[in-house]
Amino acid sequence: MNAAPAPKPGKLVTFEGPEGGGNSTQAAILAGKLRGIGLSVVTTREPGGTPTGEIIRDLLQNDLAREPLCDAAEALLFCASRAQLCRNVLAPALARGEWIVLDRFTDSTLAYQGYGRGFDIGTLRAMNDFATGETRPALTILLDIPAEAGLARAFARSGGGDRIESAPLKFHRRLREGYLALARGEPERFAVVDATATPDAVADAVWQAVKDRLLGGVC
Amino acid sequence: MNAAPAPKPGKLVTFEGPEGGGNSTQAAILAGKLRGIGLSVVTTREPGGTPTGEIIRDLLQNDLAREPLCDAAEALLFCASRAQLCRNVLAPALARGEWIVLDRFTDSTLAYQGYGRGFDIGTLRAMNDFATGETRPALTILLDIPAEAGLARAFARSGGGDRIESAPLKFHRRLREGYLALARGEPERFAVVDATATPDAVADAVWQAVKDRLLGGVC
Repeated sequence: MNAAPAPKPGKLVTFEGPEGGGNSTQAAILAGKLRGIGLSVVTTREPGGTPTGEIIRDLLQNDLAREPLCDAAEALLFCASRAQLCRNVLAPALARGEWIVLDRFTDSTLAYQGYGRGFDIGTLRAMNDFATGETRPALTILLDIPAEAGLARAFARSGGGDRIESAPLKFHRRLREGYLALARGEPERFAVVDATATPDAVADAVWQAVKDRLLGGVC
Repeated sequence: MNAAPAPKPGKLVTFEGPEGGGNSTQAAILAGKLRGIGLSVVTTREPGGTPTGEIIRDLLQNDLAREPLCDAAEALLFCASRAQLCRNVLAPALARGEWIVLDRFTDSTLAYQGYGRGFDIGTLRAMNDFATGETRPALTILLDIPAEAGLARAFARSGGGDRIESAPLKFHRRLREGYLALARGEPERFAVVDATATPDAVADAVWQAVKDRLLGGVC
């Protein structure tokens, strides 16, 4: 008798993009389709996804400390949540051969804190690498949408009370341009999908990208 | 009538060193002496010192999330607490002309996470700079004590249940050597004080260093 073969390593797919692009919706749809072809799939989110990360999420998004958070602390807290998620959830799941569909990851730090808030991109990349260790996305879906259209959707959903959604329009324009620059810099990792289409059409484009890039075009 | 003159900028004095060196005790004594010569003094600590920082302190030291914290998240959380402290407490106090006596700062990250845990010192320095912005210590008192002697004191005080105190002896030896290397690298900023002496003798040596380096030797 032979020992069971080691599992094929899993793959990490991240969803990125400006506000209102539909990351959470599309991540859930993709996870469902991947499960539908028999893959074991972990879905999670940033910030969050671990007990430590969920407390950090409350600091970042729910004013847990009841004080304004400075931009540098914000960036470092996102990376701290990411570090804990990579070490305790993502790396072990990938090693078990599972797939991961993740709503926001390292590119959000580069787009929001770098292109948006103006921090040095090289320093933020070093912080991302420090946080992630060996964990890298196999594919990043950029749900691209112009700032005005994305914000209109996000406001309609939430009422616009979120710290990020309340930032000036020019911030959101910078971060959209930043995302597109990141995608141009790593075309082999990024698939840019037009997120102004209907959710069904976006989901079809996402699935096509996943099939082409990660499933050998066979499904 | 002339407008009131702008206040003389304040000074930041940090206390650093291995476990059991007496940072907290000596910081309190120095703050009292500085107040005794008429200076306005802020005392605070890391991690902590802001509402955000105190929640981070609970994550780092009091197992708030009830899960093991990975080393990378630990380092990033220390820096996040530092960023918030610098922007919301230290920089404004220095601008008002106040002095600050701070129990641990950037060198703790280099010593504990760099020399102790083995993270790249250059990356940690970049994270420190990201966290602190323009805020730099005018003087850093290194309370130097051999690992064995310091741990014996720290255990006697706390019972030894702390995450850091429970690390292996070789970890504590590395961080003590790291602190001494940092002090050799910046002799103009560091004053190394033998912390194996009595608290009164240590306090005298600290006061002498502060007088020599920051008060022009006049007090």
